[in-house]
Amino acid sequence: MANTYVSDALIRRLPGYYRHLRELEAEGVQQISSKELGERMHQTPSQVRQDINCFGGFGRQGYGYHVSELKERVGEILGLNHEHRMVIVGAGSIGSAVSRYPSFALEGFRTIALFDRREELIGSQIGELTVHPDSELEAFLDENLVDIAVLAVPKEAAQEVMDRLLAKKIHAVWNFAPLDLQYDPAQCTVVNVHLSDSLQILSYRMAHR
Amino acid sequence: MANTYVSDALIRRLPGYYRHLRELEAEGVQQISSKELGERMHQTPSQVRQDINCFGGFGRQGYGYHVSELKERVGEILGLNHEHRMVIVGAGSIGSAVSRYPSFALEGFRTIALFDRREELIGSQIGELTVHPDSELEAFLDENLVDIAVLAVPKEAAQEVMDRLLAKKIHAVWNFAPLDLQYDPAQCTVVNVHLSDSLQILSYRMAHR
Repeated sequence: MANTYVSDALIRRLPGYYRHLRELEAEGVQQISSKELGERMHQTPSQVRQDINCFGGFGRQGYGYHVSELKERVGEILGLNHEHRMVIVGAGSIGSAVSRYPSFALEGFRTIALFDRREELIGSQIGELTVHPDSELEAFLDENLVDIAVLAVPKEAAQEVMDRLLAKKIHAVWNFAPLDLQYDPAQCTVVNVHLSDSLQILSYRMAHR
Repeated sequence: MANTYVSDALIRRLPGYYRHLRELEAEGVQQISSKELGERMHQTPSQVRQDINCFGGFGRQGYGYHVSELKERVGEILGLNHEHRMVIVGAGSIGSAVSRYPSFALEGFRTIALFDRREELIGSQIGELTVHPDSELEAFLDENLVDIAVLAVPKEAAQEVMDRLLAKKIHAVWNFAPLDLQYDPAQCTVVNVHLSDSLQILSYRMAHR
């Protein structure tokens, strides 16, 4: 896969493969054809075959794919074969929802600290974590290995926090603030969850049905 | 635009146009060139011109685009020119984060009721809303006009709630449960926010930097 061009569309489909293969494994299914997997994922068998070819091609004629092998392979491509340590900046409703989300820890995304600047939140308990004052963010990043920072602060504060994260050499940001952050893509990877954008796309699809 | 083929990629870019144009308007900017808008959105001027042509083409040679006009047009295409009434099923951390999210109401997405089946949540207050028992969902949908249902229940309960929503002729679902719902696309429009998928895409981009 390292040598193959992987389209953005395929990258977006990868977690779906992982999810369905994990479910199949949990159901005790050992092998699956491209037709069956496609039906489950609402895709054509040829799309499935083409995608899986991109991962390194596991199919055998008349047998299909070995579910566990393929799941492991997709997980590896997604970088899920090691733990990711996360800090969450912003312990409001989005930040605490992320920290409480049950499946992240199971998938190896472990929240190790939460920060906020609001006096009334500092020291409060969210699940097993205590909210630290925002002023301690830099010291924490100096002393701990952190793979991902989750940005869950209001829009007005987001770029300032981003700049502080970049100054501390954070290389991956999962951004919930509704703006396009400024950063050097060579230094940092950002994936956005723009909730308003998603809701507007629903509105678009409703209007153009 | 109704007569033009609109790619999924352009649909995904539309909310970004809306966001940037709204910001420009708030900053008092009246006109903008494709070059300036492109720089702001990290896109090429020709991509911007091509996208805006798709919306119905407002550009004038040597002048660029009229910010407010273009914002109105994009908002109209996104269906934001009328209010959407939402119910949220599942008042846990995701459901309550959605109900508290400040900008939805400003953009015309108004949450009118929250439902949950957990005794300890029923009757509790989330912002200005009271959590109703899940058993009252059908009666509420019979008596109130609802445009969008937000599905924020655990994965195990999601399809069952979806089937109840479909039985009550809900035509739009914003789904946060980490599964691919079964439904007839001719009857209902679904947009997913799969948080795990988004985090896995970040992990992929980190692994393949």
